[in-house]
Amino acid sequence: MSNIVKEVLSANSSYAAEFGDKGNLPMPPGRQFAILTCMDARLDPAKYAGLAEGDAHVIRNAGGRASDDAIRSLVISYKLLGTREWFVIHHTDCGMETFTNEIMGDLLSGSLKTATVDADGWHDSNAGGGTTDGKYINWLTISDQAQSVLEDVQRIRNSPMVPGDIPIYGYIYDCKTGKLVEVPEATAAGRAR
Amino acid sequence: MSNIVKEVLSANSSYAAEFGDKGNLPMPPGRQFAILTCMDARLDPAKYAGLAEGDAHVIRNAGGRASDDAIRSLVISYKLLGTREWFVIHHTDCGMETFTNEIMGDLLSGSLKTATVDADGWHDSNAGGGTTDGKYINWLTISDQAQSVLEDVQRIRNSPMVPGDIPIYGYIYDCKTGKLVEVPEATAAGRAR
Repeated sequence: MSNIVKEVLSANSSYAAEFGDKGNLPMPPGRQFAILTCMDARLDPAKYAGLAEGDAHVIRNAGGRASDDAIRSLVISYKLLGTREWFVIHHTDCGMETFTNEIMGDLLSGSLKTATVDADGWHDSNAGGGTTDGKYINWLTISDQAQSVLEDVQRIRNSPMVPGDIPIYGYIYDCKTGKLVEVPEATAAGRAR
Repeated sequence: MSNIVKEVLSANSSYAAEFGDKGNLPMPPGRQFAILTCMDARLDPAKYAGLAEGDAHVIRNAGGRASDDAIRSLVISYKLLGTREWFVIHHTDCGMETFTNEIMGDLLSGSLKTATVDADGWHDSNAGGGTTDGKYINWLTISDQAQSVLEDVQRIRNSPMVPGDIPIYGYIYDCKTGKLVEVPEATAAGRAR
């Protein structure tokens, strides 16, 4: 067992020992909202947004992007579990600003087992699940945070699966200060219709 | 401004006021690992796994599933930001066990703006980004947690983008107790090659 596994399980034992009545929390988020944000290690959405266990859905991926999978999660969050407001929160100093699809293709070309990389990018020749067969991977890199927040709010707003009556707010988390800063044009684009 | 937005910003102000030296944390995760887990409101991965800001990447979606987007995030986590061990953590009483693709299709048929739902499921006729055009949505529902953890560890292990030398561990978080319980066959399937 690696040291990391030992540390995680030890921390988990301490957490479980103080679990209290959290075992009785219901499945639907008590405060009826969801946050889509980046996987970045420096971000703790529960801390930066004041969430207790049971409060809100938290969706995270590289960049906090409105990928199809993030939209899948948001639609489930709304339709089955009752969230009624959504936040899209990107952040300063994001790793997604440090590379491009081309760089990623170069990095992967040395380690891929069956996929191919050509001038059009990366092609997965054997991905399962019916979702990437033969398709170019878009790594969803970012060149401007305010722009990426706006684009992602718009992409969610324009999804045919997303009801018009749910407001979507756009924010940037500042890794230097811990502060959330609104992207007003994104929140405006995400207002309920 | 909604009450939820006011509450989030108020909690954020308190967090930022006590931010201390966290503004100096580097981008790469200090403890060099990543967790893929569910968006469920009852789960706080930082608490249940003992993460401080800066320690580890956290990727979350509905179910904690190894979607293409989760794999995109994990590959970035490894290639660009240096994580060397990954956890897949599903949980008891998951919302993804409560419905099927068919139920979701029925729920969506009343609210879709441009997409169509037929006997084959949901078809997005105008999704942007080149990733879902005309494609059936797989909601990645779950019927058995140990099985879904195993399947997701295997899907990551078998991705042509994932290097063989990274171990992938499979766990289930128990919402009644707060405890992490290993799925040994998943961890075995995810062992480094």
